[in-house]
Amino acid sequence: MANPIEFYFDFSSPYAYLAATRIDDLASHYGRTVKWRPMLLGAAMKETGQRPLLEIPIKGEYTKHDVARFARLLNLKFRMPAVFPFAAVSPSRAFYWLDVRDPSLAKRFAKAVFRQAFTDGRDVTSLDFVCDLAQGMGVDREALKAGITSPEGKERLRAEVEAAVNRGVFGSPFIYVDGEPFWGADRLAQVEEWLVTGGW
Amino acid sequence: MANPIEFYFDFSSPYAYLAATRIDDLASHYGRTVKWRPMLLGAAMKETGQRPLLEIPIKGEYTKHDVARFARLLNLKFRMPAVFPFAAVSPSRAFYWLDVRDPSLAKRFAKAVFRQAFTDGRDVTSLDFVCDLAQGMGVDREALKAGITSPEGKERLRAEVEAAVNRGVFGSPFIYVDGEPFWGADRLAQVEEWLVTGGW
Repeated sequence: MANPIEFYFDFSSPYAYLAATRIDDLASHYGRTVKWRPMLLGAAMKETGQRPLLEIPIKGEYTKHDVARFARLLNLKFRMPAVFPFAAVSPSRAFYWLDVRDPSLAKRFAKAVFRQAFTDGRDVTSLDFVCDLAQGMGVDREALKAGITSPEGKERLRAEVEAAVNRGVFGSPFIYVDGEPFWGADRLAQVEEWLVTGGW
Repeated sequence: MANPIEFYFDFSSPYAYLAATRIDDLASHYGRTVKWRPMLLGAAMKETGQRPLLEIPIKGEYTKHDVARFARLLNLKFRMPAVFPFAAVSPSRAFYWLDVRDPSLAKRFAKAVFRQAFTDGRDVTSLDFVCDLAQGMGVDREALKAGITSPEGKERLRAEVEAAVNRGVFGSPFIYVDGEPFWGADRLAQVEEWLVTGGW
């Protein structure tokens, strides 16, 4: 069985949203599964000394234009959330809580978070929002809420973020194919080429 | 006659080298010419507060890996110059001096600079190197040397860099198609799509 593709992302990353709409189909076309791994870019930025893209003069303006254009090219509805950038702590904790119980549900939850944030422009950061969304997908609301506000629920995300940063994840999306790192939604064509060729 | 594509770059940018090997062929396939415009990224970085990519922890290491991999995908010889990053003042001034006299020669000169820097790993920054390279292409060495060390030769590059930064060029390569901006060698596929469709 081929290794799963590892898909690291921050829920607040619009380029991750673009990649998230395609990565599973791309992988399954080549007989691969995808392991989704939300992380928090803020932790990586502490290591690299970077700051949020949209806050960078000139480059930030270009980025807004680029991501909307990229979304149109992919025929995706796209809207920047009113509050941006945002801290995706709650949805990320919820993802990992769900992932232990039902990885497929966790992935559907993640896709729903992305859709809410980047097609409806909603604020997806609050505990209530996250619990409502999961409840709408059949999840026990109170169990989820208790889980992600528990020390274990918090620790799980912290450890995942630390592991991602230690591994070298400094941007979003960040994809590993058999250990080979690819950063950016604009590397999906190269990811595909890597899957086809096994590397070049 | 369709507008020329505008191709802004810093000679010290390895991703610009990648794009420089393809942009003219890409454009001519769609009946376009390309106007090459060397600039100095340092000036843009003052505006954006960015710093040289390879100096950024973690991201710098990834970038070295990514650009070499990207070059292999394009079947290009690639080697990082021993001295990097470098200040491309002399080759850029020489380009503009040549461009006034013979735009086609200026472009061949620029391609030679990129090749020397990124396939042979040579230091292309010195006045002597630049004059030797141009002389080998039939240019009057002393006239070039006098031209690019003159106040006018220096002012020309300064004005070009200022114009580029004022226009919004913050990275390299940076390509405009009918005013539409595309940043990065990894946007060439989108540049092509824009040429095919006229925009989306």
